[in-house]
Amino acid sequence: MANSVRAANPVLVEVTRGKIVESRHCGAVAVFDAEGKAVLEIGDTQRPVFPRSAVKAIQALPFVESGAADAFGFGEREIALACASHSGEPEHVALALSMLERAGLGEEAYECGAHWPTRQEATVKLAQGGGAPGAAHNNCSGKHAGFLCTCRHMGIDHKGYVALGHPVQEAVREAMEAVTGAAHSTDLCGTDGCSIPTYAVPLQSLARGFARLATGNGLGRERARAAGRIIAACMAEPFFVAGTKRADTVMMQMGKGRIFTKTGAEGVYCAAIPERGLGIAVKCDDGAGRGAEVMVAAVLAGLLGKDDPLAAELDGLARPTLRNWRGIEVGGMRPAVALTETMT
Amino acid sequence: MANSVRAANPVLVEVTRGKIVESRHCGAVAVFDAEGKAVLEIGDTQRPVFPRSAVKAIQALPFVESGAADAFGFGEREIALACASHSGEPEHVALALSMLERAGLGEEAYECGAHWPTRQEATVKLAQGGGAPGAAHNNCSGKHAGFLCTCRHMGIDHKGYVALGHPVQEAVREAMEAVTGAAHSTDLCGTDGCSIPTYAVPLQSLARGFARLATGNGLGRERARAAGRIIAACMAEPFFVAGTKRADTVMMQMGKGRIFTKTGAEGVYCAAIPERGLGIAVKCDDGAGRGAEVMVAAVLAGLLGKDDPLAAELDGLARPTLRNWRGIEVGGMRPAVALTETMT
Repeated sequence: MANSVRAANPVLVEVTRGKIVESRHCGAVAVFDAEGKAVLEIGDTQRPVFPRSAVKAIQALPFVESGAADAFGFGEREIALACASHSGEPEHVALALSMLERAGLGEEAYECGAHWPTRQEATVKLAQGGGAPGAAHNNCSGKHAGFLCTCRHMGIDHKGYVALGHPVQEAVREAMEAVTGAAHSTDLCGTDGCSIPTYAVPLQSLARGFARLATGNGLGRERARAAGRIIAACMAEPFFVAGTKRADTVMMQMGKGRIFTKTGAEGVYCAAIPERGLGIAVKCDDGAGRGAEVMVAAVLAGLLGKDDPLAAELDGLARPTLRNWRGIEVGGMRPAVALTETMT
Repeated sequence: MANSVRAANPVLVEVTRGKIVESRHCGAVAVFDAEGKAVLEIGDTQRPVFPRSAVKAIQALPFVESGAADAFGFGEREIALACASHSGEPEHVALALSMLERAGLGEEAYECGAHWPTRQEATVKLAQGGGAPGAAHNNCSGKHAGFLCTCRHMGIDHKGYVALGHPVQEAVREAMEAVTGAAHSTDLCGTDGCSIPTYAVPLQSLARGFARLATGNGLGRERARAAGRIIAACMAEPFFVAGTKRADTVMMQMGKGRIFTKTGAEGVYCAAIPERGLGIAVKCDDGAGRGAEVMVAAVLAGLLGKDDPLAAELDGLARPTLRNWRGIEVGGMRPAVALTETMT
């Protein structure tokens, strides 16, 4: 049997059908505290990982720190939407457009590209009404509204705001480096789905970064305050971070201000437990969102501990039932032994 | 680092972004000849795998062998659709309904469940026209039309035709056992997305089965003839096996009658090269269709060999470019070294 140069991480999630394990997701997990110390590591946590949308809360720091969010009178909903990978539901789209309007801009200012809503029900309703998707339906339109408002507030030309080297992307890069402690060099840079730069960093650094973001530890007074507002806004308005039945929305609704979670494309998930000062980052090797969701829910449940009712709710999310087109239960998903034995 | 009870198979596919490998798909590959001899094996090919829709061509044997296909005057298009996981495009839906009509049945006879078309463009058009999805839009509606027509031709009550123990499912099980040579016992049985039984069998047995199906070797005269008609129909009408821009359609269009391919849910792919008497079965461990597509295209290209122009076309499919919402090239997919070094 031939082996690849880089070995796979351990199997962390199993997908079952009948009595058989049908599919397996490998992955890595990093949990760090706000002092930067490792609490838990599974798999290779030093391998560079593109965090994609899982770091939108960090990417939103310049939007709040610059005073843009306050200048345009934005509250928790708008800040949550600036951190969102939303499902393109009418409320998300309307709020994104209202943010642009306050900054004197229209949908044509967006440089994220258009796509039909992530949520199929929203696509169907849009099509039934004779509508077509615009850039405001892009799941990243809240983050881009934040970028555009920051440009307007700071008097920076917003044209080309997605490009490497534009002042807004430089401010984002500086915030990412400061919070994660990882170098963001050009050779680690890729282009994200919404056209902005994304930098590959170790899972360790992402976990450390979210511990700092959730506690303010080591960020300085102004940045710590902005970070606290952003995390609080997402936990207060979880619908605007994702959407109907989405994992981030469900987990933060369950958490009632006790946990922060954020998904990213290609199986990345970041999270924090502010009361414990812990930051969490997981990567499902194969890029599957379903695998990363089970991983992060299981890790959060394990960290909270069996006596916490929230842990039981999260553990339920880590063991979803799978049903077919007629609603018949055909299988499920569950954390694999490499995850459960580490968490207990 | 903790390890799972069952180790992951080797990394066979890499997904890149910028200069970095962003995600990795593990998997197993089995290639067997019609004598049942192994030509190539990567990973654990004895592990039971649910073949799901990848074996629809075998599941269609009773439909042809019973004489149902001929009795209702069906040609290659209908036989191809009976083997399809189609995209729910208008041509697929119309053909499925016309098959039922010839057997004196309507859409209400279906027991596969309804879902919006797999192809988003088809969903949008259906919604724009004020339509709603029915069971004929289910990607398995052609296979179910085959089951229903078989019932009608044989004078069997079609009610409950999806259930374990129904004569049609027993005939399918018998055909699956005969062609793959693997026992199909109840403890290996799960329920498929379209509600029929699916049995987990070793990847080895699937590869052997497709070598037999494509050559007729060891199947007996009548079954061999039916198998030949089914494989020929799929290769002649590849649009009706999948749909616009789908991998099966594209590969069989490229193949011009030289290769048979069929995808299944959860990362299974079966294929055959009739002129070489080879059957191929791959499983992407994590269930990703994109991973399985690269694996099967790379394996087919490798088996055909560098001097074959078809191999170059398939190798291109095994190295797709990934673009973002604005059409910017952001990365790609490629066979990993464990696959390329075995194939050369």
